[in-house]
Amino acid sequence: MKAKKIGLADTTFAKVDMATIAIEIIRKKSNAKIIRYTVPGFKDLPVASKKLIEEDNCDIVMALGMAGKAPIDKECAHEASLGLQTAQLMTNKHILEVFVYMDEAKTDKEVYQIASNRTLKHALNALALLKGKTELSKYAGMGKRQGKEDEGPYKVR
Amino acid sequence: MKAKKIGLADTTFAKVDMATIAIEIIRKKSNAKIIRYTVPGFKDLPVASKKLIEEDNCDIVMALGMAGKAPIDKECAHEASLGLQTAQLMTNKHILEVFVYMDEAKTDKEVYQIASNRTLKHALNALALLKGKTELSKYAGMGKRQGKEDEGPYKVR
Amino acid sequence: MKAKKIGLADTTFAKVDMATIAIEIIRKKSNAKIIRYTVPGFKDLPVASKKLIEEDNCDIVMALGMAGKAPIDKECAHEASLGLQTAQLMTNKHILEVFVYMDEAKTDKEVYQIASNRTLKHALNALALLKGKTELSKYAGMGKRQGKEDEGPYKVR
Amino acid sequence: MKAKKIGLADTTFAKVDMATIAIEIIRKKSNAKIIRYTVPGFKDLPVASKKLIEEDNCDIVMALGMAGKAPIDKECAHEASLGLQTAQLMTNKHILEVFVYMDEAKTDKEVYQIASNRTLKHALNALALLKGKTELSKYAGMGKRQGKEDEGPYKVR
Amino acid sequence: MKAKKIGLADTTFAKVDMATIAIEIIRKKSNAKIIRYTVPGFKDLPVASKKLIEEDNCDIVMALGMAGKAPIDKECAHEASLGLQTAQLMTNKHILEVFVYMDEAKTDKEVYQIASNRTLKHALNALALLKGKTELSKYAGMGKRQGKEDEGPYKVR
Repeated sequence: MKAKKIGLADTTFAKVDMATIAIEIIRKKSNAKIIRYTVPGFKDLPVASKKLIEEDNCDIVMALGMAGKAPIDKECAHEASLGLQTAQLMTNKHILEVFVYMDEAKTDKEVYQIASNRTLKHALNALALLKGKTELSKYAGMGKRQGKEDEGPYKVR
Repeated sequence: MKAKKIGLADTTFAKVDMATIAIEIIRKKSNAKIIRYTVPGFKDLPVASKKLIEEDNCDIVMALGMAGKAPIDKECAHEASLGLQTAQLMTNKHILEVFVYMDEAKTDKEVYQIASNRTLKHALNALALLKGKTELSKYAGMGKRQGKEDEGPYKVR
Repeated sequence: MKAKKIGLADTTFAKVDMATIAIEIIRKKSNAKIIRYTVPGFKDLPVASKKLIEEDNCDIVMALGMAGKAPIDKECAHEASLGLQTAQLMTNKHILEVFVYMDEAKTDKEVYQIASNRTLKHALNALALLKGKTELSKYAGMGKRQGKEDEGPYKVR
Repeated sequence: MKAKKIGLADTTFAKVDMATIAIEIIRKKSNAKIIRYTVPGFKDLPVASKKLIEEDNCDIVMALGMAGKAPIDKECAHEASLGLQTAQLMTNKHILEVFVYMDEAKTDKEVYQIASNRTLKHALNALALLKGKTELSKYAGMGKRQGKEDEGPYKVR
Repeated sequence: MKAKKIGLADTTFAKVDMATIAIEIIRKKSNAKIIRYTVPGFKDLPVASKKLIEEDNCDIVMALGMAGKAPIDKECAHEASLGLQTAQLMTNKHILEVFVYMDEAKTDKEVYQIASNRTLKHALNALALLKGKTELSKYAGMGKRQGKEDEGPYKVR
């Protein structure tokens, strides 16, 4: 199989270099080619992701961003997120949204760990999605989480 | 009539394997062909649903997802929902949104039952929609519900 | 003039059979042809309306839906409403949004009356819009309401 | 120069006949041709505006609407506003949103005056935009307002 | 290399002449050609930005706007922001959103300084983005801010 191309769109706004974390795991687990595109903030990620797909022929993109603690930051993340939805529908390619909120945890260290774990797990998701539509079906409904421990399925029987 | 194709887009984030519930009832009630596509979370469902329609020629899709309890989870579901709206309008095909909120009920068991019932009833809705535009007209205004008991129409006369 | 086609998209979720109310008044006031399309809930109305326009050549559509009392119901109505906006812009046809909120009034009977009155008045609006761009201009700024009494214009002179 | 065409989309919901105010000032200040399109409410304005541009070749449109006092009215205005954004991007023409909120002032008279002033000033904006991209540059950053007094620029030096 | 074209879309609503600040720094740091487009308010910026790209062949656009202090102003900024997302996805060009909120600081002078600093830094971002996809990668995850001091990356090791 021809090597796949994975686009990594990241930001200077983030306080963690998420792309480098993604690059490390992708290189370790696959022979995928990586194209990086760094933009100022997460509102610049949707068009960057679309350009990675349409100008660089990426098969999938990870949109890596961090949102600040103010309400306006959440609104901005919401707008970026809607842009990512539209970009995916215009290209028929997945753009995995890997967003971290700076108030998801109390300490800088914990937020860093969330960012790192979420990036890592979504990099693996990207590799799985490149393999086919049912590659993740064995985990369907299993309460998988990125950035924290898996919750697992409801135990109701 | 040629067998119809039903797409099932589901997630590893959910805590119930909703697709398997859908597959069971669809197989029992029809000879429709089923194509499954499992993605990480519900924000990945819109493009997955569109790909099921455009790459696999599905006639209708069920987008099966579960949302967590935090406000950000509701925002994410809202974004996914808007993506599903756009995906339907771009393809002129129905994508039935079968979303369950983890705080819809108090116990895991009740949430599981809602997920199961909603999936089942929307699978039947999908089969009805495949039959034609007026197949459901006999139930119009009848207060039908998915995930819980039907409410029935207002009794005002 | 060739008879116009009016699409009626309605739902099984609603607790009032709004389409039947619309059909009655349209038949009484015009020779328009009516095409009906019943879907499960109001999130299914945008694509149904677009299909009525593009597959059945409807000249205008009434999207008839009811929203429940929970906050999530309002969010869903908001999503459906945005879908209806996009559907109109993609087709250059009006899709009159005839939505009723189950908490608009205190008793079932009052909600029923709102649904009935709103459907009736918007059916007349649909017929007027089919006649031309200035058919309603004589009522411009007159504080017309659907579902309740007209408010009339400000009396400031 | 060939006379420009200005579209005026207005509503029967509004309690002020804003289009007539716009017509008066446009006629006084220009030889632009005016095409009017009256619809029931402001959610009908986006497609009406797009039709004015695409069916009647309007060079610019004023979307004239009023929003009620309830939260749902604001939500509706928000939906209409997003529709107007999309309509502009689909046509590459300006659609000036001239919306008035019925709770912007305490008395009917004041709301009327806001509606009148906002319509008037935006009609002048429409005429300026028709002249070219830098026609308004002399007022850039000057704190111009429609519906009330200009605020002027910050005085910080 | 052929000189690039930078579009500057600005408003008469703003209380700071942000475009002039941008012009000064762009002229000082590059030989880029500048095309300006002044519109009434920030809701007019998305289509103005798209016109700068499609009619004037701008390679990148800065959308310069200021939002008032009322909740409705934030809603309007949100709508404009979504329009900018769509405009970028329709053109595959960056439109840097340079929005300032009038309540970001307590005094007029501070808001002016935020507007000035944000405009300046985003002008430099625009020049960097014109150079290529990895021009900003050396600053990825470095907690860069526009309008205030950089925060820097998390120090967790």
